[in-house]
Amino acid sequence: MSQTMRAAVMHGPRDHRMEERPRPKPGAKEILVRVEHVGICGSDMHFLEEGRLGNWVVEKPMVLGHESAGEIVGLGAGVVGFAVGDKVTLEPGVPCGECFNCQSGHYNLCPDMDFMAVPGQRDGVFLEYVAHPAKMAFKLPKEVGTLEGALCEPLSVGLYAVQKSGAWLGQSAVIFGSGCIGLVTLLVLKSVGVRDITVVDVIDKRLEKARELGAVKTIRGDKTDAVREILSATGGQGLPLVFECAGNAAATLQSTKVVAANGAVVLVGMAADPELKLDVATLSAKEARVETIFRYRNLYPTAIKAVATGAVPLAKIASHVFPFEKMIEGMYYNMDHKDEVIKGVVSFV
Amino acid sequence: MSQTMRAAVMHGPRDHRMEERPRPKPGAKEILVRVEHVGICGSDMHFLEEGRLGNWVVEKPMVLGHESAGEIVGLGAGVVGFAVGDKVTLEPGVPCGECFNCQSGHYNLCPDMDFMAVPGQRDGVFLEYVAHPAKMAFKLPKEVGTLEGALCEPLSVGLYAVQKSGAWLGQSAVIFGSGCIGLVTLLVLKSVGVRDITVVDVIDKRLEKARELGAVKTIRGDKTDAVREILSATGGQGLPLVFECAGNAAATLQSTKVVAANGAVVLVGMAADPELKLDVATLSAKEARVETIFRYRNLYPTAIKAVATGAVPLAKIASHVFPFEKMIEGMYYNMDHKDEVIKGVVSFV
Amino acid sequence: MSQTMRAAVMHGPRDHRMEERPRPKPGAKEILVRVEHVGICGSDMHFLEEGRLGNWVVEKPMVLGHESAGEIVGLGAGVVGFAVGDKVTLEPGVPCGECFNCQSGHYNLCPDMDFMAVPGQRDGVFLEYVAHPAKMAFKLPKEVGTLEGALCEPLSVGLYAVQKSGAWLGQSAVIFGSGCIGLVTLLVLKSVGVRDITVVDVIDKRLEKARELGAVKTIRGDKTDAVREILSATGGQGLPLVFECAGNAAATLQSTKVVAANGAVVLVGMAADPELKLDVATLSAKEARVETIFRYRNLYPTAIKAVATGAVPLAKIASHVFPFEKMIEGMYYNMDHKDEVIKGVVSFV
Amino acid sequence: MSQTMRAAVMHGPRDHRMEERPRPKPGAKEILVRVEHVGICGSDMHFLEEGRLGNWVVEKPMVLGHESAGEIVGLGAGVVGFAVGDKVTLEPGVPCGECFNCQSGHYNLCPDMDFMAVPGQRDGVFLEYVAHPAKMAFKLPKEVGTLEGALCEPLSVGLYAVQKSGAWLGQSAVIFGSGCIGLVTLLVLKSVGVRDITVVDVIDKRLEKARELGAVKTIRGDKTDAVREILSATGGQGLPLVFECAGNAAATLQSTKVVAANGAVVLVGMAADPELKLDVATLSAKEARVETIFRYRNLYPTAIKAVATGAVPLAKIASHVFPFEKMIEGMYYNMDHKDEVIKGVVSFV
Repeated sequence: MSQTMRAAVMHGPRDHRMEERPRPKPGAKEILVRVEHVGICGSDMHFLEEGRLGNWVVEKPMVLGHESAGEIVGLGAGVVGFAVGDKVTLEPGVPCGECFNCQSGHYNLCPDMDFMAVPGQRDGVFLEYVAHPAKMAFKLPKEVGTLEGALCEPLSVGLYAVQKSGAWLGQSAVIFGSGCIGLVTLLVLKSVGVRDITVVDVIDKRLEKARELGAVKTIRGDKTDAVREILSATGGQGLPLVFECAGNAAATLQSTKVVAANGAVVLVGMAADPELKLDVATLSAKEARVETIFRYRNLYPTAIKAVATGAVPLAKIASHVFPFEKMIEGMYYNMDHKDEVIKGVVSFV
Repeated sequence: MSQTMRAAVMHGPRDHRMEERPRPKPGAKEILVRVEHVGICGSDMHFLEEGRLGNWVVEKPMVLGHESAGEIVGLGAGVVGFAVGDKVTLEPGVPCGECFNCQSGHYNLCPDMDFMAVPGQRDGVFLEYVAHPAKMAFKLPKEVGTLEGALCEPLSVGLYAVQKSGAWLGQSAVIFGSGCIGLVTLLVLKSVGVRDITVVDVIDKRLEKARELGAVKTIRGDKTDAVREILSATGGQGLPLVFECAGNAAATLQSTKVVAANGAVVLVGMAADPELKLDVATLSAKEARVETIFRYRNLYPTAIKAVATGAVPLAKIASHVFPFEKMIEGMYYNMDHKDEVIKGVVSFV
Repeated sequence: MSQTMRAAVMHGPRDHRMEERPRPKPGAKEILVRVEHVGICGSDMHFLEEGRLGNWVVEKPMVLGHESAGEIVGLGAGVVGFAVGDKVTLEPGVPCGECFNCQSGHYNLCPDMDFMAVPGQRDGVFLEYVAHPAKMAFKLPKEVGTLEGALCEPLSVGLYAVQKSGAWLGQSAVIFGSGCIGLVTLLVLKSVGVRDITVVDVIDKRLEKARELGAVKTIRGDKTDAVREILSATGGQGLPLVFECAGNAAATLQSTKVVAANGAVVLVGMAADPELKLDVATLSAKEARVETIFRYRNLYPTAIKAVATGAVPLAKIASHVFPFEKMIEGMYYNMDHKDEVIKGVVSFV
Repeated sequence: MSQTMRAAVMHGPRDHRMEERPRPKPGAKEILVRVEHVGICGSDMHFLEEGRLGNWVVEKPMVLGHESAGEIVGLGAGVVGFAVGDKVTLEPGVPCGECFNCQSGHYNLCPDMDFMAVPGQRDGVFLEYVAHPAKMAFKLPKEVGTLEGALCEPLSVGLYAVQKSGAWLGQSAVIFGSGCIGLVTLLVLKSVGVRDITVVDVIDKRLEKARELGAVKTIRGDKTDAVREILSATGGQGLPLVFECAGNAAATLQSTKVVAANGAVVLVGMAADPELKLDVATLSAKEARVETIFRYRNLYPTAIKAVATGAVPLAKIASHVFPFEKMIEGMYYNMDHKDEVIKGVVSFV
């Protein structure tokens, strides 16, 4: 068995190279995984296009990709509960496990988080083999393929957003932004009984996909005043569940104008500007709350079960699959066809 | 228009008579409804069979039935938001609206509750016309028929049970008892993403219905040790969501033995004996909680929306529909064929 | 007994007149109260000074004052649970009691709310006698005087703010704004075990009062950078409980910069501008939430019990007591000495 | 420095011996602590008296004691955030840190828990030096002595019980059982604004202590019918917060008979029999819930802060302090004077 592997390494903006690297060995309590599918996240595209994302700057060669699943091909010392041949999905962030945030279940807020494909933290998974702590790996049942396993990462974001919203059967929702995160939020909402969903975006292809996945109403936010439209459709009351997945200042402000009494606005997308305007007068008059999420926590088991039981048809999210050999071209294609590619996935199998 | 109407009046155990009564007039803030469908509840059967239910004793002639829907044919003074011709479902309990329980949203615990078909409180709806406070009436959209409207009452029980359980997408559940309430609990669980559901009962017909509605596993509780079966199927861990809808001492005790760590046991059924044994040692070791519900509160809008959006296929619960003219025979039939009749509904149309 | 009474009537900005009015009679389910104490709220001052508050404009003569307590001197038909001679505090808002918000306990969001001293709604209580629905009146035990009874209104705001924050024993908090609402929030926090409290204001007198009531640290927000100060004192982590009671844009933005991981920012004060900037990047990185409150709901019993048991030393809030005869001068004095008057109360006894 | 230390070793029922043992060395990520105070828990007394507790049987010599605090005298490799000379309290259970319960914050339910003074798990702390994982150690500020530090363990139980109850300012509570756990529950309730507290016990000394610590009413449960007394004092309504800290079948049943509408019964004590009778009819009619706790989780920081800020006067719990040299006699004394010793503490300083 060859002791090397191929890895797609980003060296700088639009400088992505396929390289040979030594194949990793699993350390204590680690598993060695042969990667089968890796989703392409918007953050990967940002890093590749601009060499940075917010305060994170790529200063050294880095492997991108953090949405992955594959097959276990090796076990480090002390690993229990896993066997060679198991299919697994990998949660990309490795928390310290010992600080108060970790011990109280909020490990996503661990100050020593070591997250895949974040500059200064651990490399990503656009490569053939990865060693990863067993505690951040989750076995896939036979009903869940590794493509869906990889997409459990963005699904966890949608799960967390919906969890924070307190969504409950029969409520109505609006989602601003119909990219991957907006769409998984839509799927999760449907799976928990929220079916009356409006989606706002500026790209027709995305709105089509939203309708295909179950949105009952879509609004082209650049052509229609979404706030007026939603308020008018609800007799001025607004909607109890509002998800901002577009990550821009305008949608954030709008999201606070369409929330109903006792409702929740969940800010999921990250806008460029750290300070954003909210309609605080409306929030107060409606006694609405604003929730934020930072990634997700403890949701991979839920994601897997939701897919396995058929509650969330996750594979439908993937619009383009690129073979690993052609992934560099694939990512450039993705970069240049944002209106077309809703969710790209790299396949190694 | 005739000023009388027919009403099925219970005079004592197994003494049910069709009588003429004056047609009611709607008082202030009341609507007059021509009844279209009324569900037959287990409590109706109890009263008719034994003349009592727990501490409630039927001492005067009483009209049974409290699960109803129909069409508005008259409006009292000061009614807003309703029009003649609207289809509505009626919430059967009329709370005082002024005590602390009422004002804080827990009107189901109002000490002055005036509930249909409870001895000493208001008459039920096995009759052609009923006047009811508009505040306890809910308009049905065109997607929801009055048969489903009537069944919003037991559905609300299932909704409340699931709400109290804190059920969340992808969890697993067991329901003890597969009568009407067990089945609506099953439907609600499925609608909120809980699909891995085990149902325990002693009647095959009911277990068949449970499988038809989505139960993935059924257990004949009298032939198999349900506790051992569930613990064995879960590696000894039990299930996070446990619903006791059978209303007997044995199932109640069993329900506390199969709950998983951090889980919830919701006691929905009412057993004959007020004091029941629970496995407190297991509850404590698992840090599980026991929830109870008393009817439901503020859930009719959710029930209607869940049916209207297709999240809950409520009509499937009804196994037998009896025309009002033959309802007295129907109830006796029901009484004598408990294994066969899962849910009977009286139809006036 | 005279059939008239004196009432302080506001006719326009800085136009406040003492007039004779017919004494009211209690209607059905109403009590007649001889007013003993009424707190002067910031909103009263706003109306009197500018003739408006936000979108509310005083267009007709109006009686101000909505924080009141007194003695029952008459009972309307159908009142139960009250007797002449009882001391009571009056919750100033009368909701419809029948809409979904009311029935589900969120009556503060009732669209038909009839609130004292709001233009177009019911008159306030700067007058000798008032008739009020019994359901919005709460009996005072002997441990609670009517001055404290009147102050149960602002206390309820503090209670609601703390309730929404999810404050828990041993946590640390910061309050922006040390007026009446900031101070009652401080008292409530202390009563629930939150003792490490920082208060930010620009008026020394108020900060002195905050220290007197238990603040362990005070910051002159105009002289010190409160954000830097708080972050520096907490090793950059911020505080889990943040209350914005100042009602201005700068404090609102600051409040979102000092919140700790998993923390809550409660927006209590109302700023002039409906749209305000929040530091959404910090909120998201900390996964903090923003809560708002609209008045309060179901909290008068808690307020009374908190005072009666000694948990909240509410009377300490009152800095100035004006006899009713001199209340018009008192309000002008208050208006012109905002730095001195922390909380004025009008006394009728 | 001597390389040995003294340890009190239990060899069997009423067979407790002082022995010499090698002094431990701190392993990686461990601290070495010179023990200063250790509380004597009821479980220690049970083990010493009967050689067992529930299913746990002492089969090999074991060091008892799990409520400890002391001074750091050594640091293992990789310890951060601690220094020699720091005073610390030790959380006695060491969870695996990697299972789902651990990662989601419920480490108290970790199936691989390694808890002090539990047969088959780790030794306790009735000895001079102990090495313990730094992640389960908490620094004491100067306001908190090591006697209080040791008592943070039972305090955490009281904190968890109150947390689960959802106690809120101004509510009323009853505590069955006025031993150490009942009393810390009382202190916590007071610190969060619950001052109207009734305590039921059968030992006068304990009820005296309860009154000293703030109980407003005490009931000798063997002489008075506590259920009748509480219902009569509350107009038949019962109390919203009920804590069963007596650990017997009779008190458990009673606790379910005195709970108010929407209330909570928290089962804290462990009775001998695993199956216990509850008044399920009352629980259902009141829509009350039953909560259980298994030890505690993530509460040591709260316990320390509550003591440091003066919110909880924890030292008052300790009724007897035994020097380590005389602790064996002390424990026998305790065993033989249960009515007198409310809480014994072993002091090494």
